[in-house]
Amino acid sequence: MRKTSPGSFPVKPRLPEVTLYRLAFYVRVLERLSREGRELVRSEELARLCGVSPAQLRKDLSYLGGFGVRGVGYQVKSLERQLKRILGRDRLWHLALAGINDLGLALLSDRRLSRMGLRFVAAFDWREEWIGRIVQEVYVYSVDQMSYIVRESEVEIGVLTVEEPPAREMARRLSEAGVRAILNLGPEPLEAPEEGIILRNADLTLPFDLLTYALS
Amino acid sequence: MRKTSPGSFPVKPRLPEVTLYRLAFYVRVLERLSREGRELVRSEELARLCGVSPAQLRKDLSYLGGFGVRGVGYQVKSLERQLKRILGRDRLWHLALAGINDLGLALLSDRRLSRMGLRFVAAFDWREEWIGRIVQEVYVYSVDQMSYIVRESEVEIGVLTVEEPPAREMARRLSEAGVRAILNLGPEPLEAPEEGIILRNADLTLPFDLLTYALS
Repeated sequence: MRKTSPGSFPVKPRLPEVTLYRLAFYVRVLERLSREGRELVRSEELARLCGVSPAQLRKDLSYLGGFGVRGVGYQVKSLERQLKRILGRDRLWHLALAGINDLGLALLSDRRLSRMGLRFVAAFDWREEWIGRIVQEVYVYSVDQMSYIVRESEVEIGVLTVEEPPAREMARRLSEAGVRAILNLGPEPLEAPEEGIILRNADLTLPFDLLTYALS
Repeated sequence: MRKTSPGSFPVKPRLPEVTLYRLAFYVRVLERLSREGRELVRSEELARLCGVSPAQLRKDLSYLGGFGVRGVGYQVKSLERQLKRILGRDRLWHLALAGINDLGLALLSDRRLSRMGLRFVAAFDWREEWIGRIVQEVYVYSVDQMSYIVRESEVEIGVLTVEEPPAREMARRLSEAGVRAILNLGPEPLEAPEEGIILRNADLTLPFDLLTYALS
Protein backbone atom coordinates (compact mmCIF):
# COMPACT_ATOMS: atom_id res chain seq x y z
CA MET A 1 0.00 0.00 0.00
CA ARG A 2 1.23 3.42 -0.92
CA LYS A 3 1.72 5.82 1.96
CA THR A 4 0.54 9.38 1.69
CA SER A 5 1.49 12.50 3.56
CA PRO A 6 -0.91 15.37 4.25
CA GLY A 7 -1.43 17.41 1.12
CA SER A 8 -0.09 14.80 -1.28
CA PHE A 9 -2.07 12.36 -3.40
CA PRO A 10 -2.02 8.61 -3.62
CA VAL A 11 -3.75 9.02 -7.00
CA LYS A 12 -3.63 12.05 -9.26
CA PRO A 13 -6.93 13.94 -9.13
CA ARG A 14 -8.81 14.43 -12.42
CA LEU A 15 -9.14 18.19 -12.65
CA PRO A 16 -11.15 20.24 -15.11
CA GLU A 17 -9.20 22.44 -17.50
CA VAL A 18 -10.25 25.75 -15.93
CA THR A 19 -8.98 24.52 -12.56
CA LEU A 20 -5.70 23.43 -14.12
CA TYR A 21 -5.24 26.88 -15.62
CA ARG A 22 -5.75 28.44 -12.19
CA LEU A 23 -3.27 26.03 -10.56
CA ALA A 24 -0.75 26.90 -13.27
CA PHE A 25 -1.22 30.59 -12.42
CA TYR A 26 -0.81 29.93 -8.70
CA VAL A 27 2.46 28.12 -9.40
CA ARG A 28 3.81 31.09 -11.37
CA VAL A 29 3.04 33.50 -8.57
CA LEU A 30 4.47 31.16 -5.93
CA GLU A 31 7.64 30.79 -7.98
CA ARG A 32 8.07 34.54 -7.96
CA LEU A 33 7.41 34.83 -4.22
CA SER A 34 9.89 32.02 -3.71
CA ARG A 35 12.55 33.82 -5.79
CA GLU A 36 11.93 36.92 -3.69
CA GLY A 37 12.65 34.90 -0.56
CA ARG A 38 9.12 34.85 0.88
CA GLU A 39 8.36 31.95 3.22
CA LEU A 40 4.69 32.50 3.99
CA VAL A 41 1.80 34.04 2.09
CA ARG A 42 -1.73 34.68 3.31
CA SER A 43 -4.55 33.49 1.12
CA GLU A 44 -5.87 37.04 0.61
CA GLU A 45 -2.56 38.24 -0.77
CA LEU A 46 -1.97 35.14 -2.89
CA ALA A 47 -5.50 35.45 -4.32
CA ARG A 48 -4.94 39.09 -5.17
CA LEU A 49 -1.61 38.35 -6.88
CA CYS A 50 -3.28 35.54 -8.85
CA GLY A 51 -6.28 37.61 -9.90
CA VAL A 52 -8.86 35.31 -8.25
CA SER A 53 -11.10 35.72 -5.22
CA PRO A 54 -9.80 34.46 -1.84
CA ALA A 55 -12.81 32.11 -1.72
CA GLN A 56 -11.88 30.60 -5.11
CA LEU A 57 -8.26 30.15 -4.06
CA ARG A 58 -9.16 28.51 -0.76
CA LYS A 59 -11.68 26.26 -2.50
CA ASP A 60 -9.15 25.12 -5.11
CA LEU A 61 -6.46 24.44 -2.53
CA SER A 62 -8.67 22.83 0.07
CA TYR A 63 -10.08 20.55 -2.61
CA LEU A 64 -6.51 19.50 -3.34
CA GLY A 65 -5.79 18.60 0.24
CA GLY A 66 -5.80 21.80 2.32
CA PHE A 67 -2.29 23.16 2.46
CA GLY A 68 -2.87 26.25 4.57
CA VAL A 69 -2.74 26.84 8.30
CA ARG A 70 -5.54 29.04 9.62
CA GLY A 71 -4.29 32.49 10.62
CA VAL A 72 -0.81 31.83 9.25
CA GLY A 73 -1.33 31.25 5.54
CA TYR A 74 0.50 29.03 3.12
CA GLN A 75 4.12 27.96 3.13
CA VAL A 76 5.35 29.24 -0.22
CA LYS A 77 7.92 26.54 -1.01
CA SER A 78 5.76 23.68 0.12
CA LEU A 79 2.66 24.84 -1.76
CA GLU A 80 4.75 25.47 -4.89
CA ARG A 81 6.18 21.95 -4.68
CA GLN A 82 2.80 20.30 -4.17
CA LEU A 83 1.15 22.15 -7.04
CA LYS A 84 4.08 21.35 -9.32
CA ARG A 85 3.76 17.68 -8.47
CA ILE A 86 0.09 17.74 -9.44
CA LEU A 87 0.89 19.47 -12.74
CA GLY A 88 3.71 17.09 -13.63
CA ARG A 89 6.20 19.89 -13.19
CA ASP A 90 8.33 18.07 -10.61
CA ARG A 91 10.55 16.60 -13.32
CA LEU A 92 12.44 17.56 -16.48
CA TRP A 93 10.74 17.29 -19.88
CA HIS A 94 12.54 17.21 -23.23
CA LEU A 95 10.97 19.27 -26.00
CA ALA A 96 11.61 19.60 -29.73
CA LEU A 97 10.52 22.40 -32.03
CA ALA A 98 9.41 21.32 -35.51
CA GLY A 99 9.65 24.23 -37.93
CA ILE A 100 11.29 27.57 -37.14
CA ASN A 101 9.58 30.96 -37.25
CA ASP A 102 9.46 34.09 -35.04
CA LEU A 103 7.24 32.53 -32.45
CA GLY A 104 9.40 29.40 -32.39
CA LEU A 105 12.49 31.54 -31.84
CA ALA A 106 10.72 33.37 -29.00
CA LEU A 107 9.99 30.01 -27.38
CA LEU A 108 13.56 28.75 -27.79
CA SER A 109 14.83 31.86 -26.03
CA ASP A 110 12.17 31.85 -23.31
CA ARG A 111 13.99 31.25 -20.05
CA ARG A 112 10.68 30.62 -18.31
CA LEU A 113 10.36 27.28 -20.06
CA SER A 114 13.74 26.05 -18.89
CA ARG A 115 12.98 27.34 -15.38
CA MET A 116 9.80 25.26 -15.62
CA GLY A 117 11.79 22.11 -16.40
CA LEU A 118 10.79 22.24 -20.07
CA ARG A 119 13.97 22.02 -22.10
CA PHE A 120 14.25 22.27 -25.87
CA VAL A 121 16.85 19.67 -26.81
CA ALA A 122 16.38 19.84 -30.59
CA ALA A 123 14.80 21.82 -33.40
CA PHE A 124 13.89 20.54 -36.86
CA ASP A 125 13.41 22.29 -40.16
CA TRP A 126 13.00 21.35 -43.84
CA ARG A 127 14.84 24.41 -45.18
CA GLU A 128 18.53 24.16 -46.06
CA GLU A 129 19.29 27.61 -44.64
CA TRP A 130 18.23 26.53 -41.15
CA ILE A 131 19.64 23.01 -40.99
CA GLY A 132 22.89 22.78 -39.06
CA ARG A 133 22.50 26.12 -37.32
CA ILE A 134 22.52 26.55 -33.56
CA VAL A 135 19.71 28.79 -32.36
CA GLN A 136 19.57 29.77 -28.69
CA GLU A 137 21.92 26.86 -27.94
CA VAL A 138 19.57 24.45 -29.73
CA TYR A 139 20.78 22.53 -32.79
CA VAL A 140 18.57 22.59 -35.90
CA TYR A 141 18.37 19.15 -37.53
CA SER A 142 16.85 18.16 -40.84
CA VAL A 143 13.33 16.77 -40.57
CA ASP A 144 14.71 13.50 -41.97
CA GLN A 145 16.72 13.03 -38.78
CA MET A 146 13.66 13.39 -36.56
CA SER A 147 13.06 9.72 -35.73
CA TYR A 148 16.64 9.18 -34.67
CA ILE A 149 17.00 12.41 -32.68
CA VAL A 150 13.65 12.12 -30.89
CA ARG A 151 14.59 8.63 -29.69
CA GLU A 152 18.20 9.49 -28.90
CA SER A 153 17.39 12.72 -27.01
CA GLU A 154 14.31 11.28 -25.30
CA VAL A 155 12.01 13.97 -26.62
CA GLU A 156 8.51 13.56 -25.19
CA ILE A 157 6.82 16.76 -26.35
CA GLY A 158 6.89 18.19 -29.86
CA VAL A 159 6.11 21.87 -30.32
CA LEU A 160 4.64 23.38 -33.49
CA THR A 161 4.43 27.09 -34.26
CA VAL A 162 4.17 26.98 -38.06
CA GLU A 163 1.24 27.31 -40.45
CA GLU A 164 -0.51 24.59 -42.43
CA PRO A 165 1.20 23.53 -44.63
CA PRO A 166 3.52 22.22 -43.29
CA ALA A 167 2.00 22.04 -39.78
CA ARG A 168 0.05 18.83 -40.37
CA GLU A 169 3.02 17.09 -41.94
CA MET A 170 5.25 18.15 -39.03
CA ALA A 171 2.69 16.78 -36.56
CA ARG A 172 2.60 13.47 -38.43
CA ARG A 173 6.40 13.27 -38.47
CA LEU A 174 6.67 14.07 -34.75
CA SER A 175 4.11 11.42 -34.00
CA GLU A 176 5.89 8.79 -36.12
CA ALA A 177 9.16 9.75 -34.48
CA GLY A 178 7.66 8.78 -31.12
CA VAL A 179 6.79 11.90 -29.16
CA ARG A 180 4.02 11.40 -26.59
CA ALA A 181 2.38 14.78 -27.04
CA ILE A 182 2.30 17.73 -29.40
CA LEU A 183 1.61 21.33 -28.51
CA ASN A 184 0.35 23.23 -31.53
CA LEU A 185 0.84 26.98 -31.11
CA GLY A 186 0.43 27.54 -34.84
CA PRO A 187 -2.41 29.44 -36.52
CA GLU A 188 -4.72 26.53 -37.21
CA PRO A 189 -6.03 23.69 -35.09
CA LEU A 190 -4.82 20.20 -35.92
CA GLU A 191 -6.13 16.77 -35.06
CA ALA A 192 -3.97 14.19 -33.31
CA PRO A 193 -2.16 12.36 -36.12
CA GLU A 194 -2.74 8.97 -34.47
CA GLU A 195 -4.46 7.25 -31.54
CA GLY A 196 -2.64 7.62 -28.27
CA ILE A 197 -0.90 10.89 -29.09
CA ILE A 198 -2.03 13.92 -27.10
CA LEU A 199 -2.37 16.96 -29.33
CA ARG A 200 -3.26 20.28 -27.77
CA ASN A 201 -4.15 23.30 -29.89
CA ALA A 202 -3.26 26.57 -28.20
CA ASP A 203 -3.25 29.30 -30.84
CA LEU A 204 -1.49 32.38 -29.50
CA THR A 205 -4.09 34.61 -31.14
CA LEU A 206 -7.10 32.95 -29.50
CA PRO A 207 -7.09 35.16 -26.39
CA PHE A 208 -7.61 38.14 -28.70
CA ASP A 209 -10.98 36.73 -29.79
CA LEU A 210 -12.08 36.52 -26.18
CA LEU A 211 -11.10 40.15 -25.67
CA THR A 212 -12.84 41.47 -28.78
CA TYR A 213 -15.92 39.46 -27.82
CA ALA A 214 -15.91 41.08 -24.38
CA LEU A 215 -15.35 44.56 -25.82
CA SER A 216 -18.00 44.52 -28.54
CA MET B 1 -37.13 48.19 -33.19
CA ARG B 2 -34.02 46.51 -34.48
CA LYS B 3 -34.52 44.14 -37.39
CA THR B 4 -32.80 40.79 -37.43
CA SER B 5 -31.96 38.46 -40.28
CA PRO B 6 -31.91 34.66 -39.92
CA GLY B 7 -28.81 33.54 -38.10
CA SER B 8 -27.96 36.97 -36.72
CA PHE B 9 -28.59 38.27 -33.22
CA PRO B 10 -30.56 41.22 -31.98
CA VAL B 11 -28.61 40.88 -28.73
CA LYS B 12 -25.19 39.31 -28.30
CA PRO B 13 -25.46 35.94 -26.58
CA ARG B 14 -23.47 35.48 -23.33
CA LEU B 15 -21.28 32.52 -24.09
CA PRO B 16 -19.06 30.56 -21.74
CA GLU B 17 -15.33 30.77 -22.32
CA VAL B 18 -14.92 27.19 -23.55
CA THR B 19 -17.58 27.81 -26.19
CA LEU B 20 -15.86 31.03 -27.25
CA TYR B 21 -12.61 29.15 -27.70
CA ARG B 22 -14.35 26.62 -29.94
CA LEU B 23 -15.97 29.38 -32.02
CA ALA B 24 -12.59 31.03 -32.42
CA PHE B 25 -11.22 27.72 -33.71
CA TYR B 26 -14.12 27.31 -36.12
CA VAL B 27 -13.46 30.79 -37.51
CA ARG B 28 -9.81 29.97 -38.16
CA VAL B 29 -10.69 26.82 -40.07
CA LEU B 30 -13.42 28.61 -42.04
CA GLU B 31 -10.96 31.37 -42.94
CA ARG B 32 -8.62 28.79 -44.39
CA LEU B 33 -11.38 27.03 -46.33
CA SER B 34 -12.46 30.42 -47.58
CA ARG B 35 -8.92 31.26 -48.74
CA GLU B 36 -8.85 27.91 -50.52
CA GLY B 37 -12.03 28.89 -52.40
CA ARG B 38 -14.40 26.43 -50.73
CA GLU B 39 -18.07 27.46 -50.75
CA LEU B 40 -19.69 24.66 -48.77
CA VAL B 41 -18.51 22.41 -45.98
CA ARG B 42 -20.35 19.50 -44.39
CA SER B 43 -20.52 19.44 -40.61
CA GLU B 44 -18.58 16.15 -40.44
CA GLU B 45 -15.64 17.61 -42.33
CA LEU B 46 -15.70 20.93 -40.49
CA ALA B 47 -15.83 19.09 -37.15
CA ARG B 48 -12.86 16.92 -38.14
CA LEU B 49 -10.82 19.94 -39.23
CA CYS B 50 -11.65 21.70 -35.96
CA GLY B 51 -10.83 18.72 -33.76
CA VAL B 52 -14.32 18.43 -32.24
CA SER B 53 -17.12 15.88 -32.63
CA PRO B 54 -19.80 16.56 -35.29
CA ALA B 55 -22.38 16.54 -32.48
CA GLN B 56 -20.47 19.26 -30.60
CA LEU B 57 -20.14 21.39 -33.71
CA ARG B 58 -23.82 21.08 -34.62
CA LYS B 59 -24.80 21.83 -31.05
CA ASP B 60 -22.64 24.98 -30.90
CA LEU B 61 -23.89 26.27 -34.23
CA SER B 62 -27.56 25.40 -33.78
CA TYR B 63 -27.46 27.11 -30.38
CA LEU B 64 -26.21 30.21 -32.20
CA GLY B 65 -29.02 30.23 -34.69
CA GLY B 66 -28.68 27.15 -36.90
CA PHE B 67 -26.67 28.12 -39.95
CA GLY B 68 -26.58 24.79 -41.79
CA VAL B 69 -28.88 23.29 -44.37
CA ARG B 70 -29.59 19.58 -43.84
CA GLY B 71 -27.86 17.41 -46.40
CA VAL B 72 -25.95 20.34 -47.88
CA GLY B 73 -23.81 21.64 -45.04
CA TYR B 74 -22.67 25.12 -44.16
CA GLN B 75 -21.93 28.03 -46.47
CA VAL B 76 -18.31 28.80 -45.65
CA LYS B 77 -18.35 32.59 -46.20
CA SER B 78 -21.65 33.14 -44.47
CA LEU B 79 -20.80 31.04 -41.42
CA GLU B 80 -17.39 32.73 -41.16
CA ARG B 81 -19.06 36.17 -41.25
CA GLN B 82 -21.66 35.27 -38.62
CA LEU B 83 -19.13 33.80 -36.22
CA LYS B 84 -16.86 36.80 -36.66
CA ARG B 85 -19.73 39.13 -35.85
CA ILE B 86 -20.38 37.23 -32.61
CA LEU B 87 -16.69 37.40 -31.66
CA GLY B 88 -16.40 41.12 -32.43
CA ARG B 89 -14.13 40.32 -35.33
CA ASP B 90 -16.25 42.16 -37.93
CA ARG B 91 -14.34 45.40 -37.41
CA LEU B 92 -10.79 46.76 -37.07
CA TRP B 93 -9.14 47.01 -33.64
CA HIS B 94 -6.11 49.14 -32.82
CA LEU B 95 -3.49 47.53 -30.60
CA ALA B 96 -0.39 48.80 -28.84
CA LEU B 97 2.50 46.76 -27.46
CA ALA B 98 3.94 47.99 -24.16
CA GLY B 99 7.48 46.71 -23.72
CA ILE B 100 9.48 44.93 -26.41
CA ASN B 101 10.93 41.42 -26.15
CA ASP B 102 11.15 38.32 -28.37
CA LEU B 103 7.52 37.39 -27.92
CA GLY B 104 6.44 40.96 -28.57
CA LEU B 105 8.46 41.01 -31.77
CA ALA B 106 6.84 37.74 -32.84
CA LEU B 107 3.43 39.32 -32.30
CA LEU B 108 4.31 42.48 -34.23
CA SER B 109 5.35 40.36 -37.20
CA ASP B 110 2.39 37.96 -36.97
CA ARG B 111 0.38 38.49 -40.13
CA ARG B 112 -2.48 36.48 -38.65
CA LEU B 113 -3.32 39.32 -36.30
CA SER B 114 -3.64 41.88 -39.10
CA ARG B 115 -5.67 39.36 -41.12
CA MET B 116 -7.90 39.15 -38.05
CA GLY B 117 -8.42 42.90 -38.04
CA LEU B 118 -6.09 43.36 -35.08
CA ARG B 119 -3.56 46.01 -36.03
CA PHE B 120 -0.60 47.15 -33.95
CA VAL B 121 -0.48 50.91 -34.43
CA ALA B 122 2.16 51.68 -31.80
CA ALA B 123 4.74 50.15 -29.51
CA PHE B 124 6.15 51.61 -26.30
CA ASP B 125 9.37 51.04 -24.42
CA TRP B 126 11.28 52.65 -21.57
CA ARG B 127 14.75 51.83 -22.95
CA GLU B 128 16.60 54.45 -24.97
CA GLU B 129 17.89 51.87 -27.46
CA TRP B 130 14.37 51.00 -28.57
CA ILE B 131 12.71 54.41 -28.61
CA GLY B 132 12.40 55.89 -32.08
CA ARG B 133 12.98 52.62 -33.92
CA ILE B 134 10.53 51.15 -36.40
CA VAL B 135 9.94 47.45 -35.81
CA GLN B 136 7.80 45.52 -38.30
CA GLU B 137 6.43 48.84 -39.57
CA VAL B 138 5.43 49.83 -36.03
CA TYR B 139 6.98 52.92 -34.40
CA VAL B 140 8.41 52.53 -30.88
CA TYR B 141 7.49 55.49 -28.67
CA SER B 142 8.71 56.38 -25.20
CA VAL B 143 6.39 55.27 -22.41
CA ASP B 144 6.01 58.96 -21.55
CA GLN B 145 4.19 59.50 -24.85
CA MET B 146 1.65 56.77 -24.14
CA SER B 147 -1.33 58.91 -23.10
CA TYR B 148 -1.06 61.09 -26.17
CA ILE B 149 -0.48 58.27 -28.67
CA VAL B 150 -3.17 55.96 -27.29
CA ARG B 151 -5.73 58.76 -27.64
CA GLU B 152 -4.45 60.00 -30.99
CA SER B 153 -4.23 56.53 -32.58
CA GLU B 154 -7.44 55.28 -30.98
CA VAL B 155 -5.77 52.30 -29.33
CA GLU B 156 -8.35 50.11 -27.58
CA ILE B 157 -6.28 47.08 -26.63
CA GLY B 158 -2.89 47.13 -24.92
CA VAL B 159 -0.69 44.06 -25.20
CA LEU B 160 1.93 43.03 -22.63
CA THR B 161 4.58 40.37 -23.13
CA VAL B 162 7.16 41.47 -20.53
CA GLU B 163 7.98 40.24 -17.03
CA GLU B 164 7.15 41.85 -13.70
CA PRO B 165 8.76 44.37 -13.24
CA PRO B 166 7.88 46.30 -15.35
CA ALA B 167 4.68 44.44 -16.39
CA ARG B 168 2.50 45.88 -13.62
CA GLU B 169 3.71 49.42 -14.26
CA MET B 170 3.08 49.03 -18.00
CA ALA B 171 -0.46 47.78 -17.29
CA ARG B 172 -1.10 50.79 -15.04
CA ARG B 173 0.23 53.17 -17.68
CA LEU B 174 -1.88 51.61 -20.44
CA SER B 175 -4.93 51.85 -18.25
CA GLU B 176 -4.27 55.52 -17.43
CA ALA B 177 -3.68 56.22 -21.10
CA GLY B 178 -7.20 55.05 -21.80
CA VAL B 179 -7.11 51.58 -23.36
CA ARG B 180 -10.29 49.56 -22.80
CA ALA B 181 -8.60 46.19 -22.39
CA ILE B 182 -5.20 44.65 -21.75
CA LEU B 183 -3.99 41.27 -22.92
CA ASN B 184 -1.17 40.05 -20.71
CA LEU B 185 0.91 37.39 -22.47
CA GLY B 186 3.77 37.88 -20.03
CA PRO B 187 5.03 35.31 -17.53
CA GLU B 188 2.98 36.38 -14.53
CA PRO B 189 -0.71 37.06 -14.04
CA LEU B 190 -1.71 40.65 -13.32
CA GLU B 191 -4.84 42.18 -11.87
CA ALA B 192 -6.81 44.83 -13.73
CA PRO B 193 -5.18 48.13 -12.71
CA GLU B 194 -8.57 49.82 -12.27
CA GLU B 195 -12.34 49.19 -12.35
CA GLY B 196 -13.80 48.98 -15.82
CA ILE B 197 -10.64 47.81 -17.56
CA ILE B 198 -10.70 44.27 -18.90
CA LEU B 199 -7.45 42.48 -18.19
CA ARG B 200 -6.96 38.98 -19.54
CA ASN B 201 -3.99 36.86 -18.52
CA ALA B 202 -2.94 34.41 -21.20
CA ASP B 203 0.56 33.19 -20.41
CA LEU B 204 2.06 31.49 -23.44
CA THR B 205 3.59 28.80 -21.25
CA LEU B 206 0.33 27.77 -19.60
CA PRO B 207 -0.63 25.17 -22.21
CA PHE B 208 2.59 23.33 -21.34
CA ASP B 209 1.29 22.76 -17.81
CA LEU B 210 -1.85 21.17 -19.19
CA LEU B 211 0.26 18.86 -21.33
CA THR B 212 2.62 17.79 -18.57
CA TYR B 213 -0.40 17.22 -16.33
CA ALA B 214 -1.93 14.97 -18.98
CA LEU B 215 1.35 13.10 -19.55
CA SER B 216 2.30 12.41 -15.95
